[in-house]
Amino acid sequence: MFDKLEKQLSEKYQIEFKDLSLLREALTQANYVNEHTNFTGRDYQRLEFLGDAVMQQSTALYLFKRYPDWDEGQLTELRISMVQTRAFAALSRELHLDRYILLGRGEERSGARNRDSLLEDIWEAFIGALFLDQGAEKVMTFLKQVMFSKIDDGFYDQFVDYKSKLQEYLQRNGAVTIAYTKVAERQIENNEQIFTVEVTLDNKKLGVGEGKSTKDAEKAAARLAFQNLTKGK
Amino acid sequence: MFDKLEKQLSEKYQIEFKDLSLLREALTQANYVNEHTNFTGRDYQRLEFLGDAVMQQSTALYLFKRYPDWDEGQLTELRISMVQTRAFAALSRELHLDRYILLGRGEERSGARNRDSLLEDIWEAFIGALFLDQGAEKVMTFLKQVMFSKIDDGFYDQFVDYKSKLQEYLQRNGAVTIAYTKVAERQIENNEQIFTVEVTLDNKKLGVGEGKSTKDAEKAAARLAFQNLTKGK
Repeated sequence: MFDKLEKQLSEKYQIEFKDLSLLREALTQANYVNEHTNFTGRDYQRLEFLGDAVMQQSTALYLFKRYPDWDEGQLTELRISMVQTRAFAALSRELHLDRYILLGRGEERSGARNRDSLLEDIWEAFIGALFLDQGAEKVMTFLKQVMFSKIDDGFYDQFVDYKSKLQEYLQRNGAVTIAYTKVAERQIENNEQIFTVEVTLDNKKLGVGEGKSTKDAEKAAARLAFQNLTKGK
Repeated sequence: MFDKLEKQLSEKYQIEFKDLSLLREALTQANYVNEHTNFTGRDYQRLEFLGDAVMQQSTALYLFKRYPDWDEGQLTELRISMVQTRAFAALSRELHLDRYILLGRGEERSGARNRDSLLEDIWEAFIGALFLDQGAEKVMTFLKQVMFSKIDDGFYDQFVDYKSKLQEYLQRNGAVTIAYTKVAERQIENNEQIFTVEVTLDNKKLGVGEGKSTKDAEKAAARLAFQNLTKGK
């Protein structure tokens, strides 16, 4: 069922699962199990529970050792940008795990196979399975290859929470009022909308951002405001 | 400096630190470092960053293996009740780590040595140090001895978030209005107060609780309401 995936894991990452039922479990979505009464396996959720913790510890340990001079604030910030939905979804896609998910019919129809939240779960479940099958050391080697190597490319910058960074920066000398206000929304093709949001500090405009949701527009505004305020610092 | 602690760790838990500076780092609070300019070590915060992740993974792995039939919801609920401030503070006290903290003067005066939030940090830092010094397996053996063994005594029930559990239970068929109202407060000895809080569902009384803060009283009310509603289920 996973011949091509096994081949890829072996050739590209030197991973050979001893227990292939673990790999299958990591790729099985709950409704697939419900819809296939003859299917004897479980869905991925227990492995996801384990893999979530394995990702946290592996990343924390790697950063702790790699950056002996960083304080815990710097370590935490980088870890947060690495251990999160979009970063994990990108890794699932890089390994083409999305192609192999055993997905319920309804989820397939609604486009779940390409949804970040599912691909994040699948990544964590895959790591949980890898940990059980191959041990902590192999997980670390694998994560260095596919994930930690990306630190040097600035890959995780895109996942930085600029709303929090902006708030932290503005409140460093005490409480201030930061507000995000939708100032425009317009229709574009494909029935999609573009929102424009303005961020203000005590009613003074700091930045304007656009996005396909107000949330995305707020992030864009925060990023711009933060980068303007800290330019040259 | 830590002779008695070393003796206790060795005799009671078969732990002998190879690198005692790690043990010291785990017990050093930031202001102590600032106040002692000759002090060459670091404070505990980097080790806390690591130990936090080690506690998450160790607990997740233990629960995953111990409860092969539990779903991820059950696993998560027990993990949350175990991996949290009050549970970790209790463990710090059990090992008498509180006695050995190198604490800043201001913190000492304000009673930080007995504060749960500091003792939680110290516990995580201690586990981070133990992990670096002795490895994952020794951490697991130690946690089984001091922490996981307490599952069977019902020790973690006291840390269950009954307000969330009650809300989840009541909202299982859709939104409802749950309200907590302070109905009384009275003075007791030592200048302390006892608050009485009532929890209602759409204005119907579900339970009444008392506590030394309104928050504690709300929790007590939620616990009673939840236990009444789910009795015999």
